[in-house]
Amino acid sequence: MARLALGLDFGTSSVRALLVDVETGAEAGVAVATYAHGESGTILSPSDPYLARQVPADYRESCLEVIRAVLGSDGSHEVVGIGVDTTASTPIPVDARLQPLADDPRHADDPSAHAWLWKDHTAHAEAAEITALAKLQGRPYLSRCGGTYSSEWFWAKLLRAARTAPDMFGAAHSWIELQDYVPAWLCGLDAPVRGVCAAGHKGLWSEDWGGYPSAEFLSALHPELARIGESLDPRCVPCGTSVGGLDPSLAARTGLPPGIPVSVGGIDAHLGAVGVGIAPGTMVKIMGTSTCDILVGPNDRLTIEGVSGIVPGSVLPGKCGIEAGQAAVGDLLDWCARLTGRSHEDLTSLAREVPACSSGLVALDWHNGNRNVLADPTLTGVLAGATLATGPGELYRSLIEATAMGGRKILDRIASAGVSVERIVVCGGALARSPLVMQIYADVFARPMAVAASDHACALGAAICGAVAGAAHPDFASASAAMASPVAREFVPDEVAVGTYDQLYSIYSTLHDEFGVGQLRSTLSALQGLA
Amino acid sequence: MARLALGLDFGTSSVRALLVDVETGAEAGVAVATYAHGESGTILSPSDPYLARQVPADYRESCLEVIRAVLGSDGSHEVVGIGVDTTASTPIPVDARLQPLADDPRHADDPSAHAWLWKDHTAHAEAAEITALAKLQGRPYLSRCGGTYSSEWFWAKLLRAARTAPDMFGAAHSWIELQDYVPAWLCGLDAPVRGVCAAGHKGLWSEDWGGYPSAEFLSALHPELARIGESLDPRCVPCGTSVGGLDPSLAARTGLPPGIPVSVGGIDAHLGAVGVGIAPGTMVKIMGTSTCDILVGPNDRLTIEGVSGIVPGSVLPGKCGIEAGQAAVGDLLDWCARLTGRSHEDLTSLAREVPACSSGLVALDWHNGNRNVLADPTLTGVLAGATLATGPGELYRSLIEATAMGGRKILDRIASAGVSVERIVVCGGALARSPLVMQIYADVFARPMAVAASDHACALGAAICGAVAGAAHPDFASASAAMASPVAREFVPDEVAVGTYDQLYSIYSTLHDEFGVGQLRSTLSALQGLA
Repeated sequence: MARLALGLDFGTSSVRALLVDVETGAEAGVAVATYAHGESGTILSPSDPYLARQVPADYRESCLEVIRAVLGSDGSHEVVGIGVDTTASTPIPVDARLQPLADDPRHADDPSAHAWLWKDHTAHAEAAEITALAKLQGRPYLSRCGGTYSSEWFWAKLLRAARTAPDMFGAAHSWIELQDYVPAWLCGLDAPVRGVCAAGHKGLWSEDWGGYPSAEFLSALHPELARIGESLDPRCVPCGTSVGGLDPSLAARTGLPPGIPVSVGGIDAHLGAVGVGIAPGTMVKIMGTSTCDILVGPNDRLTIEGVSGIVPGSVLPGKCGIEAGQAAVGDLLDWCARLTGRSHEDLTSLAREVPACSSGLVALDWHNGNRNVLADPTLTGVLAGATLATGPGELYRSLIEATAMGGRKILDRIASAGVSVERIVVCGGALARSPLVMQIYADVFARPMAVAASDHACALGAAICGAVAGAAHPDFASASAAMASPVAREFVPDEVAVGTYDQLYSIYSTLHDEFGVGQLRSTLSALQGLA
Repeated sequence: MARLALGLDFGTSSVRALLVDVETGAEAGVAVATYAHGESGTILSPSDPYLARQVPADYRESCLEVIRAVLGSDGSHEVVGIGVDTTASTPIPVDARLQPLADDPRHADDPSAHAWLWKDHTAHAEAAEITALAKLQGRPYLSRCGGTYSSEWFWAKLLRAARTAPDMFGAAHSWIELQDYVPAWLCGLDAPVRGVCAAGHKGLWSEDWGGYPSAEFLSALHPELARIGESLDPRCVPCGTSVGGLDPSLAARTGLPPGIPVSVGGIDAHLGAVGVGIAPGTMVKIMGTSTCDILVGPNDRLTIEGVSGIVPGSVLPGKCGIEAGQAAVGDLLDWCARLTGRSHEDLTSLAREVPACSSGLVALDWHNGNRNVLADPTLTGVLAGATLATGPGELYRSLIEATAMGGRKILDRIASAGVSVERIVVCGGALARSPLVMQIYADVFARPMAVAASDHACALGAAICGAVAGAAHPDFASASAAMASPVAREFVPDEVAVGTYDQLYSIYSTLHDEFGVGQLRSTLSALQGLA
C-alpha cells in the first residue's frame, strides 16, 4: 500500500489537495474547489477598490470537499502526514476558542470581520505609519522586511481594522494568519501553533527581539494592538513541525483516519519553493500575476536592502528564508492583452518575430508599483523609445523584457549581498510554460532557467512538509530528494542575446534609478497628485 | 456672371481644384483626382522605408482632369486667376526646357529621376552633413530654418541624388520645386519664376545672402551641386505675383480661355493659412498626420531658436512668414488606433470619459521625432505613469494631450521671441472636427481655438493667390476679407482644466527637457543603437 502525504494549498480563489507518494514523489491525485462567496472567492467593495476579503467558513468547507474528492477514487493508500500552505498575509479575527468572528451571526455580514486577503490594500496609510514609527523610535523591526512595511501585512491590516471597525475589533480575542488557522482547525486546537513563515515575513516577529513587537511600540500605534500583541504566543516554529493530529470529528467527515500528523502552515510561495527542491544556492521563482523569488541562505544575520523578507527559520528549518518579488509580472502581460485587445497566443507569436532589443523600446515594470528592490508601491510604469512602427508584438516583448530586467535587479542585489545563486528554478502557470518568456529570462539573467515539471508546486511543497511532520522522512533534504518536482525543461542563454541584453539592462538601470529614486521620481508623484 | 478664382492644391496623394467667388468667397465647385502611380500616388521601395517618390506626369494628368471636372457642370462663370499650392520640399530634376527627366523614357523607371516627395527621408545623413558644414564654415544659411537642415529639404535630397545616382544627376540641367514647376508648366515657361515659400523655407534662399548658398559652399558638398546652384535664378517672388498667362494649348485641353493670370506657387500649409485669413497676430494650425503652425510677423530680422523657418516674404508679401510644426499628430492617434485595434470613434468615446489629467499619464509626442522646438528627428516617444488600470481611452487621451503640449512648446517659444499671438485658427480634417481634440487644445493652450469652416483651406488659399494675381483684389487684405474661410466653431478654455493642464505641462516640460537635451537623451540614442 502506497504511503502518501497530503498537501493542502489555499490559493486566492480556491483550495487544492494533492496526494503525493512519499517514496517516489508521484502525484497520486489532485482536487480543486473554489470558495463559495464573492467574486472568484473574494468579497469586493463597490466603493473601495483596495478592499479584498474572504469568508473564513469557505476555507473549511472547500477544504473538506477537496479532501473527500482527492481520496474518493482510490482507497489503496495510507496518508502519513498533512501539510498546509496559504496566501499571506491573510489575518482573521477570532474569539477565545479560535473561532472566526465571522462565524458569529452578529458579525457574519461585516467585511471587517472576514479574512483580510493578502491583496487587500486598504491599509496603505497605516503601513506607512508603521514604517515611520519604527524608524522614528529606532526599532529593529523593519530589518527583516527590507526597511518598509507593506499594506498587505498583518499589523497594517489590524491597525486599519482597529480604527475603522472598533466594535468588531473589541469583540475579537485575537487575530490569526490563515496559514496558522487551518492547521489549528484541522487538529481542533484552542491555542494555535504559529509558523515562522508568516510571523517572520509579515508579522514583525523575530527571535532577535524576542518575538512580536513590544507592547510599547504597538500601543503607540493603537492601544488595541498592544492587547492583540499580548495574545500572541511568541514561540513560532518552522515548516515540517507537527502541530497535532487530525481531529476525530473532521477525520470522520473526510474519510481520513484521526490523528494523522499535521505540519505547521507556511506561505504558499515558500512551500512552492520547497515543492521544487529549494536548497542553498537555488533561487526559486514562483511566477504568476506577481512573482516571488525564494532563496535559503545560511542562518546568519544577513541584511539585504530593498528585499522584502529575510527570516531565519522560514521556508526551511535551520536556514534563513529570503523572499523578494515583483508586484506585476503576469498582470503586466494581461494588461498588454487588454490594451491591445489581443490574446496571449497572438501576442506571443508577434513578439517571437521581434529580435532581442530590435524594438528600440525599454519599459519599467512598475504598473503595480515596485516591491523590490525599491519597495515603493506608488511607482508607476514607464515606456521609452516608441515609434510609429511600435506594434503590439514590440510592446509585449518589451514588457516581458521589463519583468526580466526587474527580476535581474533583485538577483543582482541578492548576489551582491554575498548570497550564492548557482541555479534558478521556475514554477508557475502560463509564464513558466512559455518558451518565449523563459528564453528572454535566460538571456537577460545570463543564466540557465530550469522549469519545474509539477503544475502544483505549492501543494507539493505542503505535502513535503506533511511527510516531514509525519516522519516519513527524517528531514527536508531526504524528503526533497524523494518527492520534489523534477525539472521539465532548461532554457540556456544565447550568447549574442546576453550581450545585447546587457546593454539594454544598463539603459533600464538608468531609467530605474532616475524614475525610482532620482530626479524624475517627483514627476511620477506629481502625475499621481493630479490623477 | 460670377467672377471666380481657381485654386489648385497638390497634396500627397491627390490634386484638388476649387472654384471660389472672388466677391463672396462662396465655394462654387470642387474636384479631386488621385495620382495614377504607386501606392496612393507614392512610389515606395521594398528595401528602403525612407524612400517616397512621385511620377511628375501624374501631376499634369491629374491637374487637367480636375480642372475639366470642376468646370464641367457650370458654364456661367469667368475665371479671373489661378493659384497653386503643393507639398514641399518636393524637388524634380528637369532638362533645359523645364521638362522633367522622368518624362524621358531613358529615365522613366529610375526613382531617382522622379519627384522626391516631401516625406522622402533617404537624405538624413546628407542633411546632417549640410548642417555641420554650415556651422563649420560659419555660414548664416541656417539662421532662417531653425539652425538644423532637414532630410526633407531641397539640398539634402539633391546631395543624396548626386551621390547615389550620378548618371541621372549629370543628365539633369537643373532641379525645380513642385510649387514652381506647376505654374511654369501651366504658363508654358522655359525659365521658371520661383516663389519665396519653398526657396526660403527649404532651399536656403535669402536676400540676406543674395539668394541661394554660394558656389563655394555648394561645391564643398558636391561639385554637381554648385552647377545646379548656378542654374537657379536668385530672384524669387512672393505669393500673389503673376508668373504668366495660361498656355493656349493647355487652355484648349481644359475649357478655360488662354492667358488667365497664374500666381507663383506656394507651400500647401502656407496657403492653407492664407485660406483661413492669416494676418499678424493669428497663428494658423494646419492639423493632419503632422501639424504645421504658420504665422506672419513684421518683416524684420527675427530669429527663433528651434523653429523650422522664418522667411521674409513667404506666406504673404511684405511680412515675415514663420513656420513651425510637429512631426506626428494625427499619425500618433492612428498609431494608438493600430496598437489597440480600435477605431477613432471608439477611442474618442472612451477618452471622453477620462477627466483631464485623471489618467496619471504623461506622454512625449516624439514617435516620429521632434520637428520643433528641439529639431531632432531621432527622438522617440516616451510614456510615464502607466498602471494596470491604464486602458485605451487613457492612452488615447494622453496622446492627444501630448500633441497639445508639444504645440504649446512651440507657441511658448514663438511668444517668448516677442511675436504676438492673439488668435489661433485651426484647419484640417478629422482632428479639427473632433470636439474632444479641440477642447483639450483650448485647455492646454489656455486660449480659444477657432476652427475654420472650409474643408479646403489650402485650395482656398491658392484661389486667393489666384485672385490677387488676376487683380480681382488689390492686395491680400482685401482678398482675404472677401474670400477667406469663416470660423465654424470656437472652443473656449475651461478654467479648471486650464489649471490642471498647467501642472501637467510642467511635468511634460521636465521630461521633454530631460529626454530631449538632458541626462536621459543618451538613453534614447542607446536604445536606437541597439535596434
